[in-house]
Amino acid sequence: MRLDDLLHSTGEWLRGEGPESDVVVSTRVRLARNLADFPFPNRASALQCGEIESLLRERLQQLSETWQLTYWPLHRLSDLDRQFLVERQLISREHAHANGQRGVAIREGETISVMINEEDHLRMQAIRSGLQLDEAWREINRLDDELSERVCYAFSEEYGYLTACPTNVGTGMRASVLLHLPALTLTKQMEKLLRALQKMNLAVRGLYGEGTRASGDLYQISNQVTLGRSEEEILRSIRECVSDIVAWERNVRELLLREMRSGLLDRVHRSLGTLRSARMMSADETLELLSSVRLGVILGLLDDLTVPRVNALLLQTRPAHLQKIHGESLDSEEQDAVRARYLRAQLRHVQLN
Amino acid sequence: MRLDDLLHSTGEWLRGEGPESDVVVSTRVRLARNLADFPFPNRASALQCGEIESLLRERLQQLSETWQLTYWPLHRLSDLDRQFLVERQLISREHAHANGQRGVAIREGETISVMINEEDHLRMQAIRSGLQLDEAWREINRLDDELSERVCYAFSEEYGYLTACPTNVGTGMRASVLLHLPALTLTKQMEKLLRALQKMNLAVRGLYGEGTRASGDLYQISNQVTLGRSEEEILRSIRECVSDIVAWERNVRELLLREMRSGLLDRVHRSLGTLRSARMMSADETLELLSSVRLGVILGLLDDLTVPRVNALLLQTRPAHLQKIHGESLDSEEQDAVRARYLRAQLRHVQLN
Repeated sequence: MRLDDLLHSTGEWLRGEGPESDVVVSTRVRLARNLADFPFPNRASALQCGEIESLLRERLQQLSETWQLTYWPLHRLSDLDRQFLVERQLISREHAHANGQRGVAIREGETISVMINEEDHLRMQAIRSGLQLDEAWREINRLDDELSERVCYAFSEEYGYLTACPTNVGTGMRASVLLHLPALTLTKQMEKLLRALQKMNLAVRGLYGEGTRASGDLYQISNQVTLGRSEEEILRSIRECVSDIVAWERNVRELLLREMRSGLLDRVHRSLGTLRSARMMSADETLELLSSVRLGVILGLLDDLTVPRVNALLLQTRPAHLQKIHGESLDSEEQDAVRARYLRAQLRHVQLN
Repeated sequence: MRLDDLLHSTGEWLRGEGPESDVVVSTRVRLARNLADFPFPNRASALQCGEIESLLRERLQQLSETWQLTYWPLHRLSDLDRQFLVERQLISREHAHANGQRGVAIREGETISVMINEEDHLRMQAIRSGLQLDEAWREINRLDDELSERVCYAFSEEYGYLTACPTNVGTGMRASVLLHLPALTLTKQMEKLLRALQKMNLAVRGLYGEGTRASGDLYQISNQVTLGRSEEEILRSIRECVSDIVAWERNVRELLLREMRSGLLDRVHRSLGTLRSARMMSADETLELLSSVRLGVILGLLDDLTVPRVNALLLQTRPAHLQKIHGESLDSEEQDAVRARYLRAQLRHVQLN
């Protein structure tokens, strides 16, 4: 597999299907693991990092036939390719920008990625479209089991899995659900929701992880506690909370449809109109406009588009994707012009009802 | 002529031609006159107003063959029809909303209108597309001469023409030029211009007269002084000032084209895109968006539209025009929906280059 082959699809997380996919974009469960015989990456020497990378890469290669994994040594990829992987949610921003020997193994279809030498020696995640916490957990748990037979994990009977940062000690698990909440955002109810989530010890972040603003009405909700609770307990609390949010978002959408139909229709069509006509378009504005369009498609206000199509545009207009599609590197202003042209071409033939 | 026949054209002031029509939309020269034998309208009884109206209507009818005038008794027109005449700049807002016997005579092609029993007994104006101060002045002066042979004007050797408000005493003339200044507005230079005009004793107003905000980057500039200076002096000072503004606006447009071409193109196309896709559209937002589109047409950034076409949309989307085209009266929200639909239909087939 060549990295550029990924360009032809959105991968699993933006497939636009699965349970509750009108609100839940995707589900991720990731496990943090470390090797008992090496210092954590931030304390390891360059030589040790190289040893860790070689060892884990080899172990992953032993699994690769069953698991259909392809391994990419990140330190040999260009900045653009690493950014491309970040945009596809296959590696973290930190992993992209770090130094030293490190890599990522990606499963065909992008349902699994395993980072080597991120904050921990191993960060493995399963991704599913829609709300599929159990499915994602079962899959990553199975991979973890198979790997654990081949390496010696740093594990304490008292604390559980040991990790570079104490916030991950215990299960080492972080389950996160990416929600599209345009109706709650539009009706200014996000503040209330965020306060409630904070009280429940759940973290909320934007699309691209910590510190990123929630662009495009996309919010990632994940557990903060990893210690003292089982994986199943953590998953259950997230599942319950997400079910409530999904019901709330749906209610407000129906309310908007009933009480503010013409205003909503106007917003959706203006967003599409701007995407079809602008000559300069930032990545962030694209997310905002596509958020309205996505809502319009889901509410049946736009016939000639589908959620997977909208999701594909979301991904293809991110800076690294755009530059790879365009075939050359572009400065920010050039990107805005090329992005606008790309969107116009992609949306030119959409029929408006 | 039926009033609704006017619907089929924009009339003279939005014809989009004439000298400097890339910046100057239209020129108006109006004269205030009163009959010597009656009190000013604000002091006249209802009976006297009726006499004034009858007398002047009859005198105008004597001229109507040469001047192709059609007379409308305003007190018999509906609110909608009066508003329709305001939107076409044929009567003032005050004249539309006043009480009592009053009217307006309109020349074929809408180059002349004569209001009876506005603030003064007679307010006659000549309108020209583009910058045509002399032509407008010559024409209204000729009509004034012919009328003065048929009625006895209130005139003082010392002060000149006497008027209901002292600000009009003297020549009774107000010359005004409607300018489209999108580049000066965009580059935030209007404050500076407004201060300069104030020092020159020139008044600046929005499209629909005193107290209206300058929507759509349209500014009316007119003389404030009517006393102690001849008509020719007043016209010369306005002409000189307008020439300077026209040159300034053109310079800034060229600068924008040179230095900010992609930003300008983006703005123009977004405006058109919004006009083509919105489902709710206020009259004011329409003016704003059409201002960008008009600039785009003039700068050659939009091939498939013309200034007269844009001007027609400007007029047809005003509330009274919209309701007359639609064929029934509409509340404000219905107007916004019908306006958006009308704009979409009118602009659907415009090819974007």
